[in-house]
Amino acid sequence: MKIAFIGLGNMGSGIARNLLRAGHQVTAFNRTRAKAEALEANGAQVAASPAEAAHNAEVVMTMLADDRAVEEVVFGGSGIAESMISGAVHVSNSTISTALARRLTAEHTRRGQHYVSAPVFGRPEAAEAKKLVVVVAGPETAVERCRPMFDAIGRQTFVLGDGHGAEPWTANAAKLCGNFMIASVLETFGEAFATLRKAGVQPPVFLEIMNTLFASPVYAGYGRTIAENKFEPAGFALKLGLKDVRLALALADDCGAPMPLASLIRDQMISAMAHGQGEMDWSSVAQTSARSAGL
Amino acid sequence: MKIAFIGLGNMGSGIARNLLRAGHQVTAFNRTRAKAEALEANGAQVAASPAEAAHNAEVVMTMLADDRAVEEVVFGGSGIAESMISGAVHVSNSTISTALARRLTAEHTRRGQHYVSAPVFGRPEAAEAKKLVVVVAGPETAVERCRPMFDAIGRQTFVLGDGHGAEPWTANAAKLCGNFMIASVLETFGEAFATLRKAGVQPPVFLEIMNTLFASPVYAGYGRTIAENKFEPAGFALKLGLKDVRLALALADDCGAPMPLASLIRDQMISAMAHGQGEMDWSSVAQTSARSAGL
Amino acid sequence: MKIAFIGLGNMGSGIARNLLRAGHQVTAFNRTRAKAEALEANGAQVAASPAEAAHNAEVVMTMLADDRAVEEVVFGGSGIAESMISGAVHVSNSTISTALARRLTAEHTRRGQHYVSAPVFGRPEAAEAKKLVVVVAGPETAVERCRPMFDAIGRQTFVLGDGHGAEPWTANAAKLCGNFMIASVLETFGEAFATLRKAGVQPPVFLEIMNTLFASPVYAGYGRTIAENKFEPAGFALKLGLKDVRLALALADDCGAPMPLASLIRDQMISAMAHGQGEMDWSSVAQTSARSAGL
Amino acid sequence: MKIAFIGLGNMGSGIARNLLRAGHQVTAFNRTRAKAEALEANGAQVAASPAEAAHNAEVVMTMLADDRAVEEVVFGGSGIAESMISGAVHVSNSTISTALARRLTAEHTRRGQHYVSAPVFGRPEAAEAKKLVVVVAGPETAVERCRPMFDAIGRQTFVLGDGHGAEPWTANAAKLCGNFMIASVLETFGEAFATLRKAGVQPPVFLEIMNTLFASPVYAGYGRTIAENKFEPAGFALKLGLKDVRLALALADDCGAPMPLASLIRDQMISAMAHGQGEMDWSSVAQTSARSAGL
Repeated sequence: MKIAFIGLGNMGSGIARNLLRAGHQVTAFNRTRAKAEALEANGAQVAASPAEAAHNAEVVMTMLADDRAVEEVVFGGSGIAESMISGAVHVSNSTISTALARRLTAEHTRRGQHYVSAPVFGRPEAAEAKKLVVVVAGPETAVERCRPMFDAIGRQTFVLGDGHGAEPWTANAAKLCGNFMIASVLETFGEAFATLRKAGVQPPVFLEIMNTLFASPVYAGYGRTIAENKFEPAGFALKLGLKDVRLALALADDCGAPMPLASLIRDQMISAMAHGQGEMDWSSVAQTSARSAGL
Repeated sequence: MKIAFIGLGNMGSGIARNLLRAGHQVTAFNRTRAKAEALEANGAQVAASPAEAAHNAEVVMTMLADDRAVEEVVFGGSGIAESMISGAVHVSNSTISTALARRLTAEHTRRGQHYVSAPVFGRPEAAEAKKLVVVVAGPETAVERCRPMFDAIGRQTFVLGDGHGAEPWTANAAKLCGNFMIASVLETFGEAFATLRKAGVQPPVFLEIMNTLFASPVYAGYGRTIAENKFEPAGFALKLGLKDVRLALALADDCGAPMPLASLIRDQMISAMAHGQGEMDWSSVAQTSARSAGL
Repeated sequence: MKIAFIGLGNMGSGIARNLLRAGHQVTAFNRTRAKAEALEANGAQVAASPAEAAHNAEVVMTMLADDRAVEEVVFGGSGIAESMISGAVHVSNSTISTALARRLTAEHTRRGQHYVSAPVFGRPEAAEAKKLVVVVAGPETAVERCRPMFDAIGRQTFVLGDGHGAEPWTANAAKLCGNFMIASVLETFGEAFATLRKAGVQPPVFLEIMNTLFASPVYAGYGRTIAENKFEPAGFALKLGLKDVRLALALADDCGAPMPLASLIRDQMISAMAHGQGEMDWSSVAQTSARSAGL
Repeated sequence: MKIAFIGLGNMGSGIARNLLRAGHQVTAFNRTRAKAEALEANGAQVAASPAEAAHNAEVVMTMLADDRAVEEVVFGGSGIAESMISGAVHVSNSTISTALARRLTAEHTRRGQHYVSAPVFGRPEAAEAKKLVVVVAGPETAVERCRPMFDAIGRQTFVLGDGHGAEPWTANAAKLCGNFMIASVLETFGEAFATLRKAGVQPPVFLEIMNTLFASPVYAGYGRTIAENKFEPAGFALKLGLKDVRLALALADDCGAPMPLASLIRDQMISAMAHGQGEMDWSSVAQTSARSAGL
């Protein structure tokens, strides 16, 4: 398939390479051109603008940092919306707001284009190793057409809607709630460790017990990070984690569902930001609990 | 070893049977005598009171519902405190407050007896199948003397204190924080499912994604229970779960550590109690989130 | 002074009338023209667009529902930004986000115009009766020029910045925090009454005690509304109250300050929205506490 | 009337003096005898034990620090329960748990004595100046018999139960909820000031606006304390405030009503305790918000 790929950061580069490895034809664009050129050795072509990349593509895949970046690439000058051919599909892997996903659906549809949300779970290593978990929602035929791409980049693909197609934004809703599930583990460890440290029980032994109980890589990984207070370099920066919690809360507000635990996590993360932890790993939200306990 | 075992509820019966299977000599007491007599087939002797059971024992093991039950069995009329021989060890498997664990330590020590806290993680099936996780704290020699018992009842034993002995109450602290870790999963699922249901994403598919992500039996089990709204019969009653969250908060208060997430869970559980869910499984706390969202 | 007044809802009509009573020359615009024409009897002129109203004015005062309405009136087609004369002042009485206040400051300054934030405390009756409390921030000379207008519409004017001028958005910050202070009273009454009702103490007698203690009209007024469950007609609709709490939280997030109580109020209000209370008075957030308690 | 008065701390001394001024016959007891002897000049007799003080009294009034002190004075060795004459009334002014109030009701009734809860609002100055607000619940005839005493010590008396008598513990419930109402003001100011300070708005001007809005002595007094960060000497120590919030939460739990705002205040106060503020004024809970914001 002829694919335009836009956004070659840590996540996007790995994804694009896996598309190339699977034999797809990729035209890449990145704001910092060097990152796109790095893919030429893998067989990618480099475009000078999103519009140019999207120009002949059957599918345009975007992997960008946030709503603003997506809006710029889609609706900005030299954006893809104007250059995509009729019937082409825009697949967005980014973690964006459900509001923007709805707007993308409306705008692409208006132009005779298709829009599919396909946010991914996984860190850059997982992207590189083809181990992402892909959550997909969109019109059924568009989703089916892109399925080989999802297979090429992840270990498992979940398509919402029971085979009847689901509105794209629901995939973003699932992604945001999934990140909330992980953030909740961070806050939970933070509170438990703070209390236990004040009780004289050291985190490592408690973590061992929890690993026996939960037997989960998420608990093992983040538990160790928090127990050892090793928050740099960041796997996922706290400021980005906070952004995702904000988006989850915006979703919940739109849907008419209170999420008091998400609110709590947001407040703890804002306190972490106020203490200069924006670039640390988001698991450093645990330090808010430690500080509250006078540790 | 000569063991007195007191408290033959769902958990205690399984534990006592495993002690008998391992060849220990067990004298059992239960308020409802029939439950003790059920163990006679396995080789247990039955005592008429806690005091009588404890009378010749090297170790007195108690598995009781709450602080009040433990206080009654230890300090009440015909309690074990008065009848235990000097040098004997009281091992408490119950999930009790750290305050009571401290009192037990002081009172037994004053009488020339030893006290070891050994709370367990696991449901009745795990107790029966020798699959409990045992968390132990107490004077080193007492702990070592009882180690064969721990090996007989669980799949793994964690001894706090790095081989130098830790104050018994710290094991209760670890147990309470562990239950808090699980309760937090319940609240998290409750909020995520409520929001997703209002967004039109059904819980089962989200649960599948979470199972891929967390790969944890705790998430798989409770996630299904909550997704299917099957809260009866209760594996662990909400009113008992609330008790444990209260104890975790009391510990945190004593230690000078706020636990806002534990406070939130407590409030959600109180709301569940107010809606008549005390005897349902504690995972039914998720219904509080559903109700708040108008579901 | 020659004043353009835009936005003649419940609040704006009273304010505009008081400006006319004080002898100012007012050209009024309202989307629904009839509301503007109602002011002709008081001596106002009616304009066909915001631009036309602002055309010759020394001061343009806007009293609009939310950010979107202000953006439309200022930056939209026939908006005031393009038609205001150089040196004219835009005074915004609306409760808007601090982000928009910053944008207004930048855009007006760029055009050689001035911008002053002057949000007001008080209900429609207070607007009519010249009893508003006006909180002002902006460049000192612009503020001083407008002072007669503030005196004409309120009982008290607070100018931020100790006489050296403060950035306009700080007045919006003060207004949003003030509304948070009031919202907090609503939540507090909600929780206290719910608990007391379950304890068998009826709200009226407790309210009497609180009136003796706090001796505040805010407590007396909202306390009675909540005690009597009379939430319609709304003095201030819950959906607007929720909007203001969201804006307070956005401010706090921007500033790096967690506001857990504001988060709690937001969640309680979202639950109220989910139960169809958007058009009721915002004090009906108390019903969330009642429902949580099973009342 | 012949009154025994027990507990001559800052509050009790003022109350007892006002009883003497009103012409009542008072026999006083205090653990530290000197404080009782200080009342001899005002005409009081001094007793050597609670039992001795209560011995001939028609009414025994107690003003003690907490549940434990009341239990000691009532049920301890030389306690009043054993020495009170049949038909005598025990009036408790202390801020105690509703659980203890229920126990006092049961125990006194069993002995043919009466029990009335009469907690008071007000600081030591108010006690001295006869300006307390007294909240009363108990059997109607006992309450009526004591009414002259309530008139002698406060500016206003509220009797629960609409003239039919209310269970004594309901007065304690009202008192605890009243303290929660005040504590909520402290938390609200703490959050608002923290956000505004980070926004560059100084607390004093915001406080002025709030005083115009709320026009309440509670807001004026605590607002100033918090704006000026003057938490010593304490009017009411944070550790006692925390105790009362705990009791409010215990009441709410008993009644089946969640109080998430009370939970939040409790957590903020625990954090304050962890930072060594136990002896400061309880309004210093505002420092928790300041710290969370990195101030």
